[in-house]
Amino acid sequence: MDIRTIQLKKTILENNDKDADLLRAQMREEGTFYINVMSSPGSGKTTMLAGTIRLLQKLDGSLRIGVMEADIDSDVDAQTIHRETGVPAVQLHTGGMCHLDADMSRQGLREIGSSDLDIVFLENVGNLVCPAEFDTGAEIDVVILSVPEGDDKPLKYPLMFEEADVVLVTKLDAMPAFDFDEQRFKENLRACNRTAPVFFISARTGDGMEDWCRWLMKTYNEMK
Amino acid sequence: MDIRTIQLKKTILENNDKDADLLRAQMREEGTFYINVMSSPGSGKTTMLAGTIRLLQKLDGSLRIGVMEADIDSDVDAQTIHRETGVPAVQLHTGGMCHLDADMSRQGLREIGSSDLDIVFLENVGNLVCPAEFDTGAEIDVVILSVPEGDDKPLKYPLMFEEADVVLVTKLDAMPAFDFDEQRFKENLRACNRTAPVFFISARTGDGMEDWCRWLMKTYNEMK
Repeated sequence: MDIRTIQLKKTILENNDKDADLLRAQMREEGTFYINVMSSPGSGKTTMLAGTIRLLQKLDGSLRIGVMEADIDSDVDAQTIHRETGVPAVQLHTGGMCHLDADMSRQGLREIGSSDLDIVFLENVGNLVCPAEFDTGAEIDVVILSVPEGDDKPLKYPLMFEEADVVLVTKLDAMPAFDFDEQRFKENLRACNRTAPVFFISARTGDGMEDWCRWLMKTYNEMK
Repeated sequence: MDIRTIQLKKTILENNDKDADLLRAQMREEGTFYINVMSSPGSGKTTMLAGTIRLLQKLDGSLRIGVMEADIDSDVDAQTIHRETGVPAVQLHTGGMCHLDADMSRQGLREIGSSDLDIVFLENVGNLVCPAEFDTGAEIDVVILSVPEGDDKPLKYPLMFEEADVVLVTKLDAMPAFDFDEQRFKENLRACNRTAPVFFISARTGDGMEDWCRWLMKTYNEMK
């Protein structure tokens, strides 16, 4: 199995926001739907992505999907994604950096060949703080919170939840073992983000996955 | 209930390592055992701390303990700690910063009155990346990983686990619901940290808490 690993170069651009807008415009012109996925470490990003890709492939067999897995170290996620879905995956090593900016994500998009893909997911570094401060140039930001992390997280990491275009609450099947109140979570979220839709999902049981994937397809079709 | 909230000033010192050594020497001279607790968001730091403090109080009723709760926003953790244990707690707001350095922790120690305390815990910002890069001046670094986050985390966040003086695996009671292999975790940990002791605990059931607290007391007594 050939998983390429890219050592990202750190180009600190004076204006990352401007660079991100440039990249976003370029992705739109290519017709590539570029999606940035952010969360804590261990919230189930990779498992969710594998389940999402398998379901998208069922909904539309002609979709060309790719995944960029950003990590400080290790190649396990890119290997998992490729093994479980068959889609091309590249591993991006950030060299200790806690986030990706637009130029770093551009290096990954070039490597994976985004112009030949319809949808590219970026799994950002597991971190609820820093990635929220850097626009990657993605069309939408997906923020994941897993049930075991607790319903108070929007209070503690408000910028991350404020930036979200959509929020996924994962590991729904673990709900009985944890004190997670869906209503309280929604109130905490709405205090910093009034509009982002929320999907409660379990990649393990499949619960909620279809609603989330249909929303994603609808958003993709509106962009085209 | 009077929980003070401190807005930390960001002093970017040229040499944080040197400043941290200075603070560590000062804490030793005061006889204050200063403990830095790091982990992902939602790994159960606050619950673990409350349980640990209650048990330490049982082991030695004369111990004077204090807690500094660092967060980007919200005061919930300091309130929880004070309500559940009665010990003094201060909330440190980092103003968006993803970590604490030595000077920021000094501001908190001054506020909580460390010279009148035997043990001060710092609950660092929930983040497995950035806090590992900044020495807070603490005597020991405690790194927490919760079972739902998965046994592969030392591979992905090696610096954090390398810096650990002791590792706590929390939410042990959730083990049946998750695919967490204790042996695999230890192998992953030992690849970046050959010496740190590991305690598997559940603050909910109390499992493992006594071993961990006895280790902490022993380390404290050796420092004195």
